[in-house]
Amino acid sequence: MSRRVITLLTDFGLTDPLVGIVKGVILGINPEAECVDLTHDILPQDILAGALALEAAVPYFPRGTTHLAVVDPGVGGERRPLVVEVGGHAFVGPDNGLFTFLWRRPGVRAVACTNPVYHLPSVSRTFHARDLFAPVAAHLSLGVPLARLGPPVEDPVELPWPSPRDVGDAEEGEVLHVDRFGNLITNLTLPGSPEGRGVVLEIAGLRIEGLAPYYAATRAGEVGAIVGSTGRIEIFVNRGNARDRLGVGRGAPVRLTKSPKMSWGSSPQT
Amino acid sequence: MSRRVITLLTDFGLTDPLVGIVKGVILGINPEAECVDLTHDILPQDILAGALALEAAVPYFPRGTTHLAVVDPGVGGERRPLVVEVGGHAFVGPDNGLFTFLWRRPGVRAVACTNPVYHLPSVSRTFHARDLFAPVAAHLSLGVPLARLGPPVEDPVELPWPSPRDVGDAEEGEVLHVDRFGNLITNLTLPGSPEGRGVVLEIAGLRIEGLAPYYAATRAGEVGAIVGSTGRIEIFVNRGNARDRLGVGRGAPVRLTKSPKMSWGSSPQT
Amino acid sequence: MSRRVITLLTDFGLTDPLVGIVKGVILGINPEAECVDLTHDILPQDILAGALALEAAVPYFPRGTTHLAVVDPGVGGERRPLVVEVGGHAFVGPDNGLFTFLWRRPGVRAVACTNPVYHLPSVSRTFHARDLFAPVAAHLSLGVPLARLGPPVEDPVELPWPSPRDVGDAEEGEVLHVDRFGNLITNLTLPGSPEGRGVVLEIAGLRIEGLAPYYAATRAGEVGAIVGSTGRIEIFVNRGNARDRLGVGRGAPVRLTKSPKMSWGSSPQT
Repeated sequence: MSRRVITLLTDFGLTDPLVGIVKGVILGINPEAECVDLTHDILPQDILAGALALEAAVPYFPRGTTHLAVVDPGVGGERRPLVVEVGGHAFVGPDNGLFTFLWRRPGVRAVACTNPVYHLPSVSRTFHARDLFAPVAAHLSLGVPLARLGPPVEDPVELPWPSPRDVGDAEEGEVLHVDRFGNLITNLTLPGSPEGRGVVLEIAGLRIEGLAPYYAATRAGEVGAIVGSTGRIEIFVNRGNARDRLGVGRGAPVRLTKSPKMSWGSSPQT
Repeated sequence: MSRRVITLLTDFGLTDPLVGIVKGVILGINPEAECVDLTHDILPQDILAGALALEAAVPYFPRGTTHLAVVDPGVGGERRPLVVEVGGHAFVGPDNGLFTFLWRRPGVRAVACTNPVYHLPSVSRTFHARDLFAPVAAHLSLGVPLARLGPPVEDPVELPWPSPRDVGDAEEGEVLHVDRFGNLITNLTLPGSPEGRGVVLEIAGLRIEGLAPYYAATRAGEVGAIVGSTGRIEIFVNRGNARDRLGVGRGAPVRLTKSPKMSWGSSPQT
Repeated sequence: MSRRVITLLTDFGLTDPLVGIVKGVILGINPEAECVDLTHDILPQDILAGALALEAAVPYFPRGTTHLAVVDPGVGGERRPLVVEVGGHAFVGPDNGLFTFLWRRPGVRAVACTNPVYHLPSVSRTFHARDLFAPVAAHLSLGVPLARLGPPVEDPVELPWPSPRDVGDAEEGEVLHVDRFGNLITNLTLPGSPEGRGVVLEIAGLRIEGLAPYYAATRAGEVGAIVGSTGRIEIFVNRGNARDRLGVGRGAPVRLTKSPKMSWGSSPQT
């Protein structure tokens, strides 16, 4: 491979030149690096939102990709800087739970990338993305092996993960995220790719029966539910905004009833 | 050419990692692709705004560029996925009018890119930019010919296009777009590159006589009109904001009077 | 070097496709150029903010980088288009003070890039970033020497620079910038890298004693001061927002007292 992809995910925003500076450091070390922004609009210090966005994106990048992820309220303090390798992908960022979704994957390995040889000569206390994580990511993209970067880590920080709870014939979940279109992305999924007849969702006092095969299959302005692009159930309003209509957002409870009359169709995409 | 440029235009915003995911898919298929963002801030589902932005950008990209444009309220439904080729540029996106400005160009060809060989193995109902359009664009950038992607399309969807109307010695147009500086971009143009003496514009009860040669040629705070960078007449306030000052935005009527005493100067840029 | 980095800094925003168009022009001239966005969210026509962002970013880019910076209220008028070279970096943009921080550097050279051979064939009066600065930057990245671009400039425009004032045993400075986290970045610095015991900062009626070694070293919600990533003293609230808490922003006066009992520690990063 003549060049390597490095993805960037931060809570830096794009108003200050911070992301550009990080890319300058990377290109100074690996001129062939190809930087791809995932998002820099994670809410400041919202580690869980960063983890969820990264989890959604990783499967669509080629093997050999390095992912630089920095949502780092503890910068400059005691938290360890981490490199994780699993499934042919490498991850660089703070040890604060941002990589929780990786810990259960087979073959996962982590080190604390404390070897100063792979940092900038001077490391500030407030901008490790520039001084520490960017150079480590650039060196990884050049093929530096994990063992050189620092000592193994066996006890990385884990975030409590927002999983749905089974309650009899129902599941209780929550809204994880509201996207730009006002769609409410939940932590509920359906096994296989059912068409969802017989499924009932309850949210904000509203009852939604069945899942739509696609957004425009409901009438304009109507509330619907659908299996979204990452497999999660979403609440949407066709050509409208579900957050505004329902008046709820992140954290709102959602209840999925597995009705006995539910029929599981086959996947529409196979 | 050792690598190919792919432009991206969507209504996805940059807060969710959707655009990054699309780039991951592209780089997985063509590691030499060079992705260039046009904009991802098209208002959700505003097909006309997407078409106008694309029309403004295309002439400044080199031959061989592929343009991926996704403003797609009908995703997952009946609307066809489209590839258009004209003037050495290729275009990929939904058949909903986004490419209306191309239909009159000589030599234009279109196919419905329905051949699953050039899609991801599993195509969701909600994210065709990732599962269908991105892989098709990447394959196009590798040189796959149109005929392999799917059957010809002879009747692509056309948007009603906001053209000005001739009414005697005047033209009645409208504001197409308000830019970041608050400038009101109209659908009115002037033949050649006249200096515009004698031209009278009427908007929001205001009368503007003549065109400014450049923004700073009017006094700070003054309302002026100018031929903008794409040839359209713009209403501006020097060092101010015309939208705020005039209290009008997109769709506002503008009237251009071709006064008999109008003198056409020669182009200032030749 | 097989390709060259070109950074981009403007006040264009990302909603209109202007930045994408600039990149299209660059890639049409130098297909191997690697464009890196610094920021496009400089407030419209805020030349000083553009200069400060550029000054912060430049040291982190490799030698050979070209910096395209356009905050240009005078576009199309009398102001000269400028190319500056210093320290192995090249800069392209309007002669309006944007490059003030470069004038004192040893070996600095500037030309007015008026040679039309290196512009687009037609130059508009409103979009020199596209028609003039982008092609000049692309040609620079291909190795065109300064002397070919236009005549030398000996008297470039200088902005009044916001330096702190010495008043007895104190320094009076101001807030230069509020970042995404609500941190107040001042124009005050400390010689060396002292830990700052004994330092007293006064801002908005508040008195802050000492400097924090890192953000999380103060209690959550507490106001602190720290030497930020570019050496400037910042006022912050750990896991909070200093602008909202203190109710002040850019231009707010800050007073730094060099208390006699101040002890200068050694740099924490060496």
